[in-house]
Amino acid sequence: MTIKEMIITPIAIVDPPLLNAAGLHAPYALRTIVELITTDNISGVSEIPGNIEIDAALASARELLIGKDPFQLNAIRHTLENVGTETAAQRGDAPWDQRKLVHVFSAIEVACMDIIGKVLGLPVVDLLGGRMRDRVPFSAYLFYKYAGAGGKLGFGVDPAAGGWAAARQAEALDPAGIVDQARAMYTEFGFQSIKLKGGVFEPRAEVDAIIALREAFGPGTPLRIDPNAVWTVETAIRYGKEMEGLLEYLEDPVRGQENMAKVRKAVNIPLATNMCTTAFEDIPGSISLGSEDIILSDHHFWGGLRTSMELSRICATFGRGLSMHSNSHLGISLAAMVHLGAALPRLPYALDTHYPWQSDEVITRGRFKFEEGAVMVPREPGLGVELDRESLARLHQNYLDCGLTRRDDAVEMQKVVPGWTFEAVRW
Amino acid sequence: MTIKEMIITPIAIVDPPLLNAAGLHAPYALRTIVELITTDNISGVSEIPGNIEIDAALASARELLIGKDPFQLNAIRHTLENVGTETAAQRGDAPWDQRKLVHVFSAIEVACMDIIGKVLGLPVVDLLGGRMRDRVPFSAYLFYKYAGAGGKLGFGVDPAAGGWAAARQAEALDPAGIVDQARAMYTEFGFQSIKLKGGVFEPRAEVDAIIALREAFGPGTPLRIDPNAVWTVETAIRYGKEMEGLLEYLEDPVRGQENMAKVRKAVNIPLATNMCTTAFEDIPGSISLGSEDIILSDHHFWGGLRTSMELSRICATFGRGLSMHSNSHLGISLAAMVHLGAALPRLPYALDTHYPWQSDEVITRGRFKFEEGAVMVPREPGLGVELDRESLARLHQNYLDCGLTRRDDAVEMQKVVPGWTFEAVRW
Repeated sequence: MTIKEMIITPIAIVDPPLLNAAGLHAPYALRTIVELITTDNISGVSEIPGNIEIDAALASARELLIGKDPFQLNAIRHTLENVGTETAAQRGDAPWDQRKLVHVFSAIEVACMDIIGKVLGLPVVDLLGGRMRDRVPFSAYLFYKYAGAGGKLGFGVDPAAGGWAAARQAEALDPAGIVDQARAMYTEFGFQSIKLKGGVFEPRAEVDAIIALREAFGPGTPLRIDPNAVWTVETAIRYGKEMEGLLEYLEDPVRGQENMAKVRKAVNIPLATNMCTTAFEDIPGSISLGSEDIILSDHHFWGGLRTSMELSRICATFGRGLSMHSNSHLGISLAAMVHLGAALPRLPYALDTHYPWQSDEVITRGRFKFEEGAVMVPREPGLGVELDRESLARLHQNYLDCGLTRRDDAVEMQKVVPGWTFEAVRW
Repeated sequence: MTIKEMIITPIAIVDPPLLNAAGLHAPYALRTIVELITTDNISGVSEIPGNIEIDAALASARELLIGKDPFQLNAIRHTLENVGTETAAQRGDAPWDQRKLVHVFSAIEVACMDIIGKVLGLPVVDLLGGRMRDRVPFSAYLFYKYAGAGGKLGFGVDPAAGGWAAARQAEALDPAGIVDQARAMYTEFGFQSIKLKGGVFEPRAEVDAIIALREAFGPGTPLRIDPNAVWTVETAIRYGKEMEGLLEYLEDPVRGQENMAKVRKAVNIPLATNMCTTAFEDIPGSISLGSEDIILSDHHFWGGLRTSMELSRICATFGRGLSMHSNSHLGISLAAMVHLGAALPRLPYALDTHYPWQSDEVITRGRFKFEEGAVMVPREPGLGVELDRESLARLHQNYLDCGLTRRDDAVEMQKVVPGWTFEAVRW
């Protein structure tokens, strides 16, 4: 049995006007759906963050993949790593750098794992050593946002909609708005912990939002804030100290491992990152500097599910915690995250997910449900999801129609705030 | 399908009078054969270094294992890690420490991987991401030795036997004897690299043996020496410098990570270890000190095959090489080593094996063959070996008859050299 076809479908999914340090979410988030089909007509799927460069890299990988055995993932990776090079020592001519390689390979690996699971009659979690838990917990992911939903800035607010349906459309630009959003999300999904995407307003306002969340939810609900590295070391230490005792962890307050290490020494809160330690190549620096306590992994950017298990061993070896980062995504990515989350030996932190902010779906089972903030681990073979081809066609048409080819939150922000520019360190 | 039975069989295999820093190999080496049988009557096997304490720990594990799904290896490990403890934080009451745990778990994991492979129709290498190579290279493992073979010290030398059969019985106590041994081993097995177990004679004599091997085999045959950490730092630096340009790597010249790091800074030869960095808990120290270049892993002591793949990722992340350590062993251990060796992304060094020194076997296919120093990776489901029950019974009877309960090379040495005592640092 070999791979006979690789179908790469860029899609655009409606996304609310969420604010972050880089600007504003566009009306559509781009994802790419990869489908591998074997000579036995077994298909495996995966979903990754999409852009025109990654789609091109996937297209370059296609010819390398056709004819390969999907069980031979070590060899497939080796092929991708060494393409265009006479020897591994002569890098440079390959169609991708290391970061693009792991992104592309993650798409291929997850789709192959889906195939392997279907062939063997095993859910993907059992290809990772088996399930440690039946439910994988996620945290509420709060955003400052403009009014609007479903890609429509300032529109679409349905005053008759209650609960999360209304809150998803509502403006949230201050502590009260954030608390309302959290309450609605909590009621709808049952999340047991809360993350606020910060780096949008000056730190005083965002710390006040954390204080307001603490007052609203009490000490039993772990809180996190992620300023996306736009704070100075001094700001991070000042507000970090203020939030000691309030936060489960502080995510990427500052930019770079050296600065993270300085903050870590000064502030008694665990630091988490998906910005300063984002690849195996960054691990030695992280260890020697002590830049963070928790790595927020992302199988899309760390080379797939099996390497994420290896990252878990590295974290355990060096006393780091491991949790997961997210982008706007649909159910195929969620399924992969859930299988991985179920296999990890330890899962002390609820994972990030943007999923509640999305309304589209591309799988036949419809949108995943959350119970008490957790997703049940699928028991079907493979990922446990099947492509809904009608939805896929519609979302691909969205992609063609929307004209976006890569994420650019700054451009989107400038449509609302003319002249807005991204600043790597702002406060 | 669950595990319905676990059969633990200690065996004694005849072993030649090989010398090493700890003394002399006894006439028998102890191994323990573990067989797991499922409710579907599928059996999986593994082989580990045996002693009475490990056999008792395996027996304690038995009741925990019965009824478990062999696919759920993460959960099985979790159970073993947490037995006897209310929470993972309250260690101490468990029937094993961490080192015994990984030893016991490796026996269980390999047998479960054998079962999983048989159930799925896949060789074990394909459960580790698939084969990177079809042949796994080993190195010639030379020993200073007394005359004799098959457990008979000074006896059993058959003058009519030629080649390796004669060399296996011959005395080798000086450079000429070592070169003869290497020539015979090379001719019989085709090994492409050579390791000398040192730490037996004063360093000058052993370095002279390396020089003699270089003269006999030329620069195209990588050489290694392993003094088993009985050299002082000064001795290691002095003779290490002399062997610059002669050695592929120098294995454990000195004791402890700190001393290894001192030697590493002074000598321009890669250092390898299976003594100063032998568990994941040792990795942080290794990284911060820079104690070695190459970790000689051993799946029996690192918790199995999947954790060995994780160790491989750690080594790649921190720029360490990975190869394999060995003890006296039979074909079940060799099969597991070969499947792992076939799956490793990189395999720059030929692996250690004592296998040519053994004459017994416990599997129906008979003894594995070496071609040009390499073993073909089995293609049958699971490990690709089946227990030979007659041999197992005979080798178990050996165990009962020989009276040994654990390895003690010092006691054995004292039978030849009265009053001999082990010295942790000798020269």
